[in-house]
Amino acid sequence: MTESAARATEDDDLARACAQAMFDADTASRAVGMHIVDVGPGRATVRMTITEAMLNGHGIGHGGYTFMLADSAFAFACNSYDVATVAAACDIVFLAPTRAGDLLEAAAAERHRGARRGIYDVTVSRVNADRSEVVAEFRGISQSTKDAVLGATTKGMSSPEGIRSS
Amino acid sequence: MTESAARATEDDDLARACAQAMFDADTASRAVGMHIVDVGPGRATVRMTITEAMLNGHGIGHGGYTFMLADSAFAFACNSYDVATVAAACDIVFLAPTRAGDLLEAAAAERHRGARRGIYDVTVSRVNADRSEVVAEFRGISQSTKDAVLGATTKGMSSPEGIRSS
Amino acid sequence: MTESAARATEDDDLARACAQAMFDADTASRAVGMHIVDVGPGRATVRMTITEAMLNGHGIGHGGYTFMLADSAFAFACNSYDVATVAAACDIVFLAPTRAGDLLEAAAAERHRGARRGIYDVTVSRVNADRSEVVAEFRGISQSTKDAVLGATTKGMSSPEGIRSS
Amino acid sequence: MTESAARATEDDDLARACAQAMFDADTASRAVGMHIVDVGPGRATVRMTITEAMLNGHGIGHGGYTFMLADSAFAFACNSYDVATVAAACDIVFLAPTRAGDLLEAAAAERHRGARRGIYDVTVSRVNADRSEVVAEFRGISQSTKDAVLGATTKGMSSPEGIRSS
Repeated sequence: MTESAARATEDDDLARACAQAMFDADTASRAVGMHIVDVGPGRATVRMTITEAMLNGHGIGHGGYTFMLADSAFAFACNSYDVATVAAACDIVFLAPTRAGDLLEAAAAERHRGARRGIYDVTVSRVNADRSEVVAEFRGISQSTKDAVLGATTKGMSSPEGIRSS
Repeated sequence: MTESAARATEDDDLARACAQAMFDADTASRAVGMHIVDVGPGRATVRMTITEAMLNGHGIGHGGYTFMLADSAFAFACNSYDVATVAAACDIVFLAPTRAGDLLEAAAAERHRGARRGIYDVTVSRVNADRSEVVAEFRGISQSTKDAVLGATTKGMSSPEGIRSS
Repeated sequence: MTESAARATEDDDLARACAQAMFDADTASRAVGMHIVDVGPGRATVRMTITEAMLNGHGIGHGGYTFMLADSAFAFACNSYDVATVAAACDIVFLAPTRAGDLLEAAAAERHRGARRGIYDVTVSRVNADRSEVVAEFRGISQSTKDAVLGATTKGMSSPEGIRSS
Repeated sequence: MTESAARATEDDDLARACAQAMFDADTASRAVGMHIVDVGPGRATVRMTITEAMLNGHGIGHGGYTFMLADSAFAFACNSYDVATVAAACDIVFLAPTRAGDLLEAAAAERHRGARRGIYDVTVSRVNADRSEVVAEFRGISQSTKDAVLGATTKGMSSPEGIRSS
């Protein structure tokens, strides 16, 4: 194995370890049935099925669940370098309604990674057996903290330099 | 009662009827414990408590729930004129983390209402007994359909002119 | 004059001094014909006329000029406390096209002011004699630096803690 | 030449013809020194140099010009199918300040193209001889009208179904 291939494997391993630690502690994502399909440095793919309990007043999937799935994929992607990182701001464009039974997939990719801020684009698609279609496009701006992911999730994030108001 | 006061009362009544019909059908918002505190033409205030089941991998409230609360307040506000209206796009800025036990309040106000599009600003605050603080600012762009809210929620939204992909 | 009235006057004076210093150095805003109508702590109103030289390929005002006017009003508002502050991110919704000869007014108001970040809402209106209409809604997220406005604009912003990449 | 290669050439020719017609009529983009580097179906690359006249009150390039360049690249990209299309909403994240003399390049790529709405991502970079760096990331939501680009720009867009308020 070449040196760069070895480093790529290490980066992938670190990304997976971070995502696993985050996901183990992520009661919210697990409670709504998300599972991680793929993760790597700056990227993550997460799936979730829309249930009857997720429908809004128009009888379609509540946009909050589409956002939540995208936001989780964003979180796994931007925390993949073992630097605890939070969402500073996000925007989402809704392109098609979701229905009960839809299997949604959110694929997060890194667009920018600076000293403190990052930008991640997340495409949310319906990936049903009979039909695949983009339902939303999400963009998140991340803000890194001074904590590690692996230490933080096991020890708890009590550092005053950690997650706070701004 | 003056004519304008009578009309204001009618508008308030219509807004309340729309919000009630939407909320009755809104399995998602009810399942996470939301309740409507106030609603009127172009405005709505909704509350929800952050539970342990809503915490993310950093041990703070998942941003998806903050967004969901804001999105529901936005939905009740923009559907208050008995015209079925959906979210076209939204953005949210996260200003402070939420914690388990926090009582959140999302207050939606109308900034613009055009022929087809509207803009709604939603402030999400922690309104605990001991401390009040803004945790997020949300802005939603709405798109009106050709359906009524009151008819649609009782009859089901099957109109081809209704909610669809774009 | 009461103490709070005296302080309000001081705050207004500081805001005006900051805006004047910024505007004197702001070649861009002056070159396109902007002028400040009003400024105070966290707020600013700026006007500009759309000229033939500002029309785009559809024969309407280029959205870049509507944005530029809003961005300048945002800058004067968020720099009104004598803390050099820059735009971290902005979004704009275009609601109506502008035409050559339109007098545009951008009114910036502060929605949030935290330790490092602020949120400012700017409404851009056509305020022609015969017709007033909102043409765009803008929201800006500001990021404060460690420089002063008044010192910085006279001395030049050379501090490494000043404006930089992120 | 295969059928698909012939169609690709036709699509490229159409995109170039649309961009040329738009640019010829685009007084604003030409007045600030923009020139089109590349254009194709759903994509466009545009360059502009930051001049002293484009500096703001902090002595750096006014964000309005960075936005304007991105917005023009977005316009050429989304109008490349000979359907007159306007910006409905845009957001921009500023990642690094620009300086007088910087050669900026905005590269617009299509992320989504639906029946009426599209999403375009535009990366703005400083492409100076000695240093290349991303200075902003822009995302635009487009809204198509019922006019053609080629007809519209030569005849003028007077159609009531064309560009209007919403």
